[in-house]
Formats: sequence, C-alpha cells, structure tokens
Amino acid sequence: MKSVPSHEPAKPTLSEVSERAGVGRSSAARVLGGYGSVSARTRERVLAAAAELGYETNELARSMNTGVTRTIGVILADLSNPFFAGVLRGIADATRRAGYGTIVISSDEDEGLEADAVRLLTAKQVDGIIVAPAGGRDASASALRSAAERGIPVVQIDRTLRGLDADAVVLDNRDAAREATDYLLAAGHRRIALAWGPALPAGADADLAALTSAALTSEITSTGERFLGYVDAFADAGVPLRPELVMTGAQNIAGVEEFLARTLTDGDVTAIIATEQDSVIAALSAARDHGRRIPQDLSLVAFDDSPWAEVHDPPITTVRQPLHALGERAAGRLLSRLEGGGDRVIVSHLASEFIDRRSVRRLR
Amino acid sequence: MKSVPSHEPAKPTLSEVSERAGVGRSSAARVLGGYGSVSARTRERVLAAAAELGYETNELARSMNTGVTRTIGVILADLSNPFFAGVLRGIADATRRAGYGTIVISSDEDEGLEADAVRLLTAKQVDGIIVAPAGGRDASASALRSAAERGIPVVQIDRTLRGLDADAVVLDNRDAAREATDYLLAAGHRRIALAWGPALPAGADADLAALTSAALTSEITSTGERFLGYVDAFADAGVPLRPELVMTGAQNIAGVEEFLARTLTDGDVTAIIATEQDSVIAALSAARDHGRRIPQDLSLVAFDDSPWAEVHDPPITTVRQPLHALGERAAGRLLSRLEGGGDRVIVSHLASEFIDRRSVRRLR
Repeated sequence: MKSVPSHEPAKPTLSEVSERAGVGRSSAARVLGGYGSVSARTRERVLAAAAELGYETNELARSMNTGVTRTIGVILADLSNPFFAGVLRGIADATRRAGYGTIVISSDEDEGLEADAVRLLTAKQVDGIIVAPAGGRDASASALRSAAERGIPVVQIDRTLRGLDADAVVLDNRDAAREATDYLLAAGHRRIALAWGPALPAGADADLAALTSAALTSEITSTGERFLGYVDAFADAGVPLRPELVMTGAQNIAGVEEFLARTLTDGDVTAIIATEQDSVIAALSAARDHGRRIPQDLSLVAFDDSPWAEVHDPPITTVRQPLHALGERAAGRLLSRLEGGGDRVIVSHLASEFIDRRSVRRLR
Repeated sequence: MKSVPSHEPAKPTLSEVSERAGVGRSSAARVLGGYGSVSARTRERVLAAAAELGYETNELARSMNTGVTRTIGVILADLSNPFFAGVLRGIADATRRAGYGTIVISSDEDEGLEADAVRLLTAKQVDGIIVAPAGGRDASASALRSAAERGIPVVQIDRTLRGLDADAVVLDNRDAAREATDYLLAAGHRRIALAWGPALPAGADADLAALTSAALTSEITSTGERFLGYVDAFADAGVPLRPELVMTGAQNIAGVEEFLARTLTDGDVTAIIATEQDSVIAALSAARDHGRRIPQDLSLVAFDDSPWAEVHDPPITTVRQPLHALGERAAGRLLSRLEGGGDRVIVSHLASEFIDRRSVRRLR
C-alpha cells in the first residue's frame, strides 16, 4: 500500500464515491462530471456520498472526466529541429498568458503521422490547432479541413499547405534569401551554391524553368520561397544564375555533402547559402573535408541563427528568424479566432534579421 | 463556401446527421459516441440518419466524442534543449510502434507548470505519463502521485524526483562525469573547472562538505550526480579538489560566463568540464573573450554530444548520452506497466559514451 504523507490527507477518489453511493463507477462519473443521463435516485445518492467524503466536484474534476479544458494543440514537423523548439516556446508563452494549456505532437515530417496527429488532437477536444505542415498535401489538408468543420480553428505556422484555406503566420523567406544572396553578390561572389533548393530528384534535368516550377508547386512553401529570393537577387544584379549550383536530391546531411563534394570540386564554388541547420552542419563538414578554410577559401551564410553559430570560429554570418515572435503571433491569431474574430483568412509575414559576422570574404 | 476537391467526397458531419434525424447535436453525439443516455426513439432516428448519410460510427468517431484514445503524455523540462528533443524522438518512435499517440507538454523548468501539465494530461485521459521532472518537489510530486492513484502509471526520465516512488530510466551521470574527469587528470590537468555544479547561491561558502551535501539533496538529481563523479575521480587519483573551481550560482549562460571570468583569471584553470549545452556555449564564448585558444591554452570536455561539436574547430571532446535509447527505454517501461507488468519500482541506468576528439591538450 502506498503511504501518504501526514501533512497531505488523501483526496477521495471517484471509486470511493461510487462505492459509498452503491452505484457503478461510470454512473458516479456521469453525475460528478455533469454529462450523460442518470436516474434522479442515483444522482441523489452520488451527490450525498461525494459531500460526505469531501469529493471536489469542481471544474477540474469535471474536466478530468470529460476532457474538456482550455487547450491548444500544436503539430510541429520536427521537434528535434531547434527552429521548431524556438517557435514552440513563443506559442506556449502566449497561450499560457491567456490561460490555455498547450499540448504538442511532432509529425516527424511525415504526412500520415500529421493526419493522425490532427485526429488525436480532435479526440482530445482541443479548442484550436496550430500546425507547421510536414509538406504532404492530401491526407493532412483533409484532416485539417475536417477539424475546421468541427469548429476547431486551424492556424498554419512557418509553412502553408496548398489546398488548405486557413490563417497562417509565416516568415519572409523570399526576402530573407534575396538579402543573403544580394550580400554575397555585392561582396563579389558569382558562383554561390544554394543548399538546399526545391525538391527535385537528384540528377533531374534541373534548368531554371524546372527549378522555378518545382519551387512554385513545392509542398513545403518555405523552401520554394528561398529559391525564388535567390533567383530575384541574381536577376536584380544582372548576374547569370547557374542552375547546377542549386541543390536537388535528398534534403538531409548526406544529400548536402554529396552535392558539395561535386560542386566544390567541379563548380568552383566560392560561397554557400545553407538554408537549414542540417545543411549548415554539412557545409562546415564538407569545407573541412575538402580543405577549404572559412572564409578565406569559402564563404558561408546560414539560416537560422544559433548560439553555436556565434561561438564558431569564425563566427558565422546568419539570417536570424524571429522564432519566438512567430510562435506568439500564431497563438495570438488562434486566440482571436477562438473569441470569434472575423471570417476572413489572414496570412501574416514576419521579417528576418541579417546578422553580419565573419564567415564571408569580400572578393572585391 | 469552402470548395472540396472532387476526388475526395465530403464526409458527413455530426451536424448533418443531427439535422437529418431532427434531434439536437448533443443527442446525436451521445448516440454515435456510445455514451450517455437517450430515448430509444432518438437512438433509432439518429442511427437511421447516420446510415443514410454514410456517417462513420467507428472507434475514431467514438474517441472524438469521449477523448478516450491510446495516448501517452510526456512532460519535459525544456523542449528547447536538444537533449530533450532527442529523448522525445525515442519515446515517440517506441510508442508509435505500439500503436499509441504521444502528446507533449514543456514545463519550462517550472515546478508549478509541471503540476499544471500533470493535471491537463489527466484531464485529457492519457493512459500513462513520462516525466523529466523540472526539479521542484512538492507540487509536482503530489500531482504525479495523484495521477498514479487514478491508475495512470508514471515513469520518470533523466531525472528523478525525491518524494516520488515511481519507475525511472536515467543516465549514469556519476560514471560519465568520473570518466571525463579521469581523462583530464590523466592528461595532466589539475585545475579543472566544473560548470555547473550543485545548486548553491553564488558566493555561498562552498567547501567540499557544503557542495556534497547540496549534491546529495539537490532537486535535480543529474546535476548532483555529475558533481559526485567529479569528486570520485579526484579521490581515486589522490589529487586535492579545489572547491572554488566548482560553479555555484545561477545555472545559465550568464552565470557560467561570470564564473569563468573569475576562475580563468584568478584560478589558473587549465580545463573545463561543461555539463549542459548552455555551459558549453558559455565556455567557448568565455575562452574567446579571454584570449584562450582551445586546446592550446584551455581544454574542454562537453556534455552532450551535438552535430555542432563535431564540426567545431577544433572538434570538441564530448560525453555522448544515449538520448534515443533513453526515450525508448522509458516508453517500453511505461508500456509494460500498461500491460499490468509487475508491482516493483524499477530504476534503470544507461551508460554514456566518451567521444575523444581534439579539444583536450595533454600536459604531460
């Protein structure tokens, strides 16, 4: 038997109430939880037993039986990515101030798991859902539409799903990538590798038209927008863009290493824009493996900022995205939806900040 | 009106069923969800309407109305710490294989928020809880005991709460810290700073006895154990330990920087053991600010491993903790509890791996 410290008397349980009332546990739960139907006689006996034992029939007890609480559900594509961890902190801070709890599910960048997550959150009776979509479109867009039809508002964060007409709070990925590319072009770089680019099979015939088409239809909008910003900067500067320096193929560390092994050797690349933490790690690793010093032999601009980027030798020039503000803004949007605010779908954009450190060499 | 792609017919909603049956939405929900009481006539009309519309009265629909699903709740002290993100991946992989969903709450290292999280998960009718305690003891231990009394098994992960008699899966923090300290002592280091040590106010009279007592009673057991491993190694080597090189005070980046500013100047420190990501970042930053090159002027061993540690210049010697295995093991323990496995409380320990890179200089 479990001992209970003497300063903290044991609270009566639902089972004790039902035993004393001489009714089933589920009948007692219905009376005390305020849902379902029971006979007047049962109700009377349960309430009497609860009063005798000092059972708390408060909001909390009721919510424990019905699961109805003020709760926001959050689905993030990858919780092991510090980007999403930072966003989550912003969401939780804002929802907490408003008296809501936050429960989170990681979809691990899998569309099927994302649809499962929507259904689980719906079953758990959350009041609203914030989702950073994993990229697939049909299954999860359909599950999210279905949640919205059940009166559970949905706000998209960081990325938007084609085929889902819902509020969104996103970053200015196109502007941010244009600014990073402008900076490198102004420093005299011409052969600038982009890792990674729009999703295309490795070795696909990736000319500018194919890449642009992939960017405009890509399932994860943020990656496509970064490519478009890179294109904008080359066009503005009147410099021809070399499509073979835009990475296609598997979007992971090994994919970047393979791409850089080829372009560092054959492409005479002088600078890299790395748009994800994994591509930054791969770029640093490839530079070392190929004996290129940063910034003397190879320049680097990284998305996002990280405490490691600042203490790296040399400190890395980054695009710092406002993760906390992104989370707060999305939560604010959802909370205003829950208060019945407006019918019009709103898409908000947040600006990034360019942090000029010492990983870029001026060539002229 | 929302358009629906033609290849995906709209599923009938609960409201459409209740409209067609000519009954209230809540009556329809009770019939289709299989809970509560309604008249035989209402039940018949609702079931007929549901059949006509093709409404799915399956397990999922029922769970959406009752919130009862196969779900594990996870409470982590800090989701923005990559340590916990890695652990979570292990938990989610294991629970998913067993057909459970996982919902997560970050307590942000706050005891009150942790107790709130326990209550929210209980209200959301999770089957069991995995918790990495934030460190406080009374409120959250009491909330967790209360969950256990409601038949919701609890497994602790990474850290254990004094005052909570529940299964735990933890790391061999004491052995891991002893191994790291042994390594530095064997390389000839004697003045080895530990950042951070047991929780004591900054400037407290921190002799060995006070530190040991704080370690043995500290609320976050892992920090105390790392200090004890550090003590073990000095004792084994017969080298006198200098308590002023063990950090006390605020356990954050600023606290470490202040501690190192003092000990690098006055303490003639030749090596640092950094036991958290924040203390690693602070150590790298302090080394640069004080003009100490790693490893020529200052050696460093870091907990945990990180992809950044490997690409750092020089690559950093680390203690790699088995985060994924830690999560998997805790989930396995919880799943076996859910299947009714055993009464005895089990505490499992997992071993860490020492990764020898190039941030330690041999002094002899």
